[in-house]
This record gives sequence, structure tokens and C-alpha cells, in this order.
Amino acid sequence: MTAELKALPPGSTIGILGGGQLGRMLAMAAARLGLKCHIYAPAGDNPAFDVAAAHSQGAWDDEAALARFAAACDVVTYEFENVPHAAIAAVERACPAFPPGRALEISQDRLTEKRFVNGLGIATAPFAVAGSAGALSEEARAIGFPGILKTRRLGYDGKGQTRIADASGLTGAWAQMDARDLIYEGFVPFSREISVIAARSRSGAMAAYDIGENVHRAGILHTTTVPAAIAPATAGAARDAAFAMLEALNYVGVIGVEFFVVPGEEGERLLVNEFAPRVHNSGHWTIDACACSQFEQHIRAVAGWPLGDPSRHSDAVMENLIGADVEGWQSRPPRAGECVHIYGKAEARPGRKMGHVNRLAPCGN
Amino acid sequence: MTAELKALPPGSTIGILGGGQLGRMLAMAAARLGLKCHIYAPAGDNPAFDVAAAHSQGAWDDEAALARFAAACDVVTYEFENVPHAAIAAVERACPAFPPGRALEISQDRLTEKRFVNGLGIATAPFAVAGSAGALSEEARAIGFPGILKTRRLGYDGKGQTRIADASGLTGAWAQMDARDLIYEGFVPFSREISVIAARSRSGAMAAYDIGENVHRAGILHTTTVPAAIAPATAGAARDAAFAMLEALNYVGVIGVEFFVVPGEEGERLLVNEFAPRVHNSGHWTIDACACSQFEQHIRAVAGWPLGDPSRHSDAVMENLIGADVEGWQSRPPRAGECVHIYGKAEARPGRKMGHVNRLAPCGN
Repeated sequence: MTAELKALPPGSTIGILGGGQLGRMLAMAAARLGLKCHIYAPAGDNPAFDVAAAHSQGAWDDEAALARFAAACDVVTYEFENVPHAAIAAVERACPAFPPGRALEISQDRLTEKRFVNGLGIATAPFAVAGSAGALSEEARAIGFPGILKTRRLGYDGKGQTRIADASGLTGAWAQMDARDLIYEGFVPFSREISVIAARSRSGAMAAYDIGENVHRAGILHTTTVPAAIAPATAGAARDAAFAMLEALNYVGVIGVEFFVVPGEEGERLLVNEFAPRVHNSGHWTIDACACSQFEQHIRAVAGWPLGDPSRHSDAVMENLIGADVEGWQSRPPRAGECVHIYGKAEARPGRKMGHVNRLAPCGN
Repeated sequence: MTAELKALPPGSTIGILGGGQLGRMLAMAAARLGLKCHIYAPAGDNPAFDVAAAHSQGAWDDEAALARFAAACDVVTYEFENVPHAAIAAVERACPAFPPGRALEISQDRLTEKRFVNGLGIATAPFAVAGSAGALSEEARAIGFPGILKTRRLGYDGKGQTRIADASGLTGAWAQMDARDLIYEGFVPFSREISVIAARSRSGAMAAYDIGENVHRAGILHTTTVPAAIAPATAGAARDAAFAMLEALNYVGVIGVEFFVVPGEEGERLLVNEFAPRVHNSGHWTIDACACSQFEQHIRAVAGWPLGDPSRHSDAVMENLIGADVEGWQSRPPRAGECVHIYGKAEARPGRKMGHVNRLAPCGN
């Protein structure tokens, strides 16, 4: 559906595909603006249900349920990028949906994603795909070792990735992983990973938050620190790259773009790692350090509202609470500037994102 | 029920009596902490229902429904102070409830409230009550004219108040109002009205937000500006008075205390206008200008958690959106630092609180 969307007035209903913590925080941001939310998610632990005016439980392939859901909404959006294409199509027959399906399709395949980014003149890590272990080893040798063998689809939080030291390691890993769906990425000697959280409105206006620096542990985001310790020119280039991607995708909503920063004699060089066509874990600091959070920004964009002010009033460090990290906060006195967020998930399994803490400090600019 | 309350872990259920915007913002703050909310409210426009995990619709005198509601909660609190005493008693038979019922009882009657405040050695406006217009005129003459004749109970937002110029005006107003339930308050030549938003935890710890200055229009709060333009000693005295009230009430939760500031040759003098045993409209700025909002602070207190950090990271002006003020925000680009909050009420009647805007500026201290 491509009909022009007018700004949805308060009282309108935003549909959200997915019931996890991103859907929960989107629903809470929508509520601040007087908008109602309707969550659609398969059976399971869906903490977004607890803060939404309505919810529907249904499978991703239940097109009739998706159509009923979409008919009850004024606009639909996604809390994660692995919604099947057929589900999006079923929704779009009844109701506008943002971000555009093409952005999701591209981000769902690491090969398509890298080709899209390179096509805009933006660098990525060197990569190779091939139909056999032997052919891929040859390509990988040209790129160099070490590197990382990744599944092209459905990888997240370090899952579906194996570090490759040499050609024989590649052959061994190929045998253990699904050979039809692999990509080899050359190792990048980066000094830091940063991410740009940016947004584009229905009218084409764009805004970006100050850039955060990410530290991972065991393949999962551990902290995001804002501002990132990068040169102003690097920050500008990262923002420009994110804006170029938003425009090329005719995007509506918030996008998260991860970059590697590679130091060099001619200054810092940027490589796009990946992008997520949704609100992003590395943007959670915006809830407490900005007048308009990434969640409100996304809701504003998909509802056809003008974008909010992305500037930060405080410096921030966001720390994820993984698994048992979430325990004990009810008896711990908060430190100055400490904002705890707990997602209300039923079970604190190891490696599961259970909450996050934002720690604010006066803005150092 | 007076059993010791342990800190309720995430996943516990907070019951809230009342379904308006204060209940809505309390529920959203509870959700940040991973707590579920169950709202109880009579039929009507209950925007808090849209952001709560559960709700029950029932009358304030339906003790069976109240008992069922309380049995489903781990602790119960109030979003407004006019909950009937019998309703509180019905809840307390099944579940702990905070703030204490005595605080609600005292605040429900302007005479009891003033006697309580004066009993702590804290000044109020001079006041008088009497059984006849003649007797009250005599008392009022001793206090002086002009003054304000108010209903002792159920007045809010300027309702149930008449300005009295002289003794004959008092007799006329007496005839028009419910004579059994009136209090005359002498006019106070105040320079400004301020309010203290303070909290007390289950363990007796107390915290106060920076003091805001209130401006009313047509008897309804129009703006709160933080910080208030008062001497540091005045701010300290106001905070101490609020803390003395919290201790005397063995209070748990957030309280809002309004003061008149009266300038004089020996410095500023403070008179308590009234207190509200709940989160307060003049504390809405804390949502965007503090790490821990008044809503989170209240939830922390009633759930037995340690209090959060009340310090502000930004200066703020809160402006209420009354009636039609709420219209058009979906097409208005936010200014820098502007945070709009819309309550999701169905109908924008004149005089009705429909939302508020917080405007942030760098903290000037």
C-alpha cells in the first residue's frame, strides 16, 4: 500500500510485529504521544503485551491472523528484522507498513546487505561467497586470514559465526555449518566499533543521534558509550553514510548502522559492519539522555509525525543486563544518574537480554 | 495489613486505584522496572488501561470487586486522593496499600489538613470554620478580607472555591454553597507558589526533587518552572517541612506539598497551601529532567525498593495541555529540548488535563 499517510492523530493505533523488549519500549514511547499499540507475536514470552492496549497471538505464517491484525491498525511496524517477507506482504494488503519491506529483505542477507552498501560507495569488510569449500578457500586466501565464516541469514548476537584462522579451518567449519548459506569476511584490524542511530520521516527529513561506541562480550553487546572517542570528521562521515543508506532505501523509521573504525596513517577509515532496519540495542541510551528517544523517534516517523530533537542533554553509558545480571536491582540503591530498565521477561536464561542500565553524566560535548 | 513488605522483585504486580493520567504514568514507570500493573477504576475514560498488564472495572463501593482486585496484587497504591475510606479498607484486608490511609483521610478535608500541618509547627494561611454564616463572618472579620471560601472536601483545580471581598460577600456565598462543609481562608499576599515533590521509602529514607514554581490559569496549574526563583534557605525550609510531614504520617510513596512564598522584611516566609498524598502535576517535569521520575520514585517506594536519585540533569518548564491545547501536536516539529506527553483521553473537554509538555534547558544550578 503506497497511499499518502497523513500524520496519525493521538488515539490512532500503531501495530507492532514482535513482542520482545524492543516492541515493549516502542509501545511505551507511543503511549507518551497518546497513540495506542497493538502487538502481534507468536506464542512465547512477549513482554510487550503488558504495556499495549491490544495484542494478537499468531504465527508468522498465519496470513489470516496477520490480515485481521493489520485491519485493526492505522500503520504497522516491526520490532525485529527477521519477519518473513510473506508476513509483511499480508500486512501491507490491509495497512501501510514501515520501514519499507525492501530494507528488511536487504538486511536479512549479509551478502545482499554488503552489495547494497558497496553500491552506495560505502566500504565494508572484504567478503567472499562460493558454492564449495574449495572455491571459498581460494577466495578467502585472496582476502587473507584470519577471518570469520558467517551464516548469510538469521545470525544475531554472535550466533552463526565461526572465527577462521587458516584455509584448513575454513574447510572444517564449512563442513559443520550450512554450506549453502555462508559468507567469509576478512578480519578487519579495527580500533573500535561505533553505531549511528538515525531516522527518516515520511517527508524525507533525517536526524541522527550522537554516535555511540560499542563493546561486546561473548558476541553480545555489553556497553555503548556516548560520545564515541572518534574524530569529528569520522563522526560526520558515519552520519553521512547512514543518511545515504536511508535515502537509497526510501526509508521511514529508525535504522541502526554499525561501523568498524580502522586507524591508519591517513586518519580513521570506516567500514559498515551491518545495519538493522529497526530501533537498535546501541540506541537504548537515548531513553534517558535525549529529549526524544530512538523509540519515540521511530514512532514519530512511522506515524507521519515530524521527527523529534535527537540532541543529547547528558553523556551516557548503556550497559546490557544479560541473564542473571538482571537480579537484585530491587534491593540495590541506584547511584547518581543511574536509570535501570528491566524488560519483564519471565526467565533469565544465560545470554538473554533481560534489561539495561543507563548511567548519565553531565554533557561534556 | 501491616506485615513487613520485602522488596517486590520484577514480575510482581502493583495495583493502582484510579485509571487517569497519573495511573497511566505510574504504570509506565513500573513497566521500566519490570513490574506489572493492575488498574482498578470505575467505568469511564480510563487511559491507564491502555498501558497496564491487567485492569478491573468496578465502582468505588463494590467491596467484592475491590477485594478480588487486591487479591491479584502484591501491593496497592492510589492515583488520586479521593478514594473512599471504605474502599481502602476493603483493599487492605487482602493486600498492603501505600501511602497510608491516614494520609488520604487528612488530605481529604481542608480543616483536618491545616490542623495536621499546624500541629507540626508549620504555618498555613489563617482559616476559620463555623456553623453559621453569621458566626463565620465574625471569624473572617478577625482574619481579615479578602479571603477565599472553600468546600472542605472534594475541591480540586479551583472547583469549590469562591473569592470573598467582604462580610456581605461571605453571607451571599454561604447561601450558595453547602454550608455544612465550608472553610474560610484569609488572603495571603504571596509572591509565588512553589511545590515540593518528596518521597519516603518503606525503610524511612527520604528524598526530595528540586523545587518548582507554579503558575495557575483559571484555577488550573498552567506551568511549573524548575528551579524556582527562591532563596536557598527558603528551599531548605520547604524541603524540611515536607520531610516533617512524611515522617509524621509514617508515609510511604511520593507526596506533593504546595507552599505560598510570602516576601517580607525578614526574608521569605512559607505557608503550606495543601498537600496531595500522591504523585503531583507539578512533578511531571521530573519525567524528562531527572534520572528517576516522580512516578518511578513512587513505584520504588510502594514496592519496597530503595529510592532513586532525585537530582535534575536539566532545567525544565512543564506546561499543561488543557482542553484543545492538546490538538495539532502530530504535525508540529518539536523545538530543541521539547518533550510532549499526551494522555490518550477520548475527549478534549474544556478545562480537562489532556497532556503536558516538558521543555528542557541545560542545568543552570
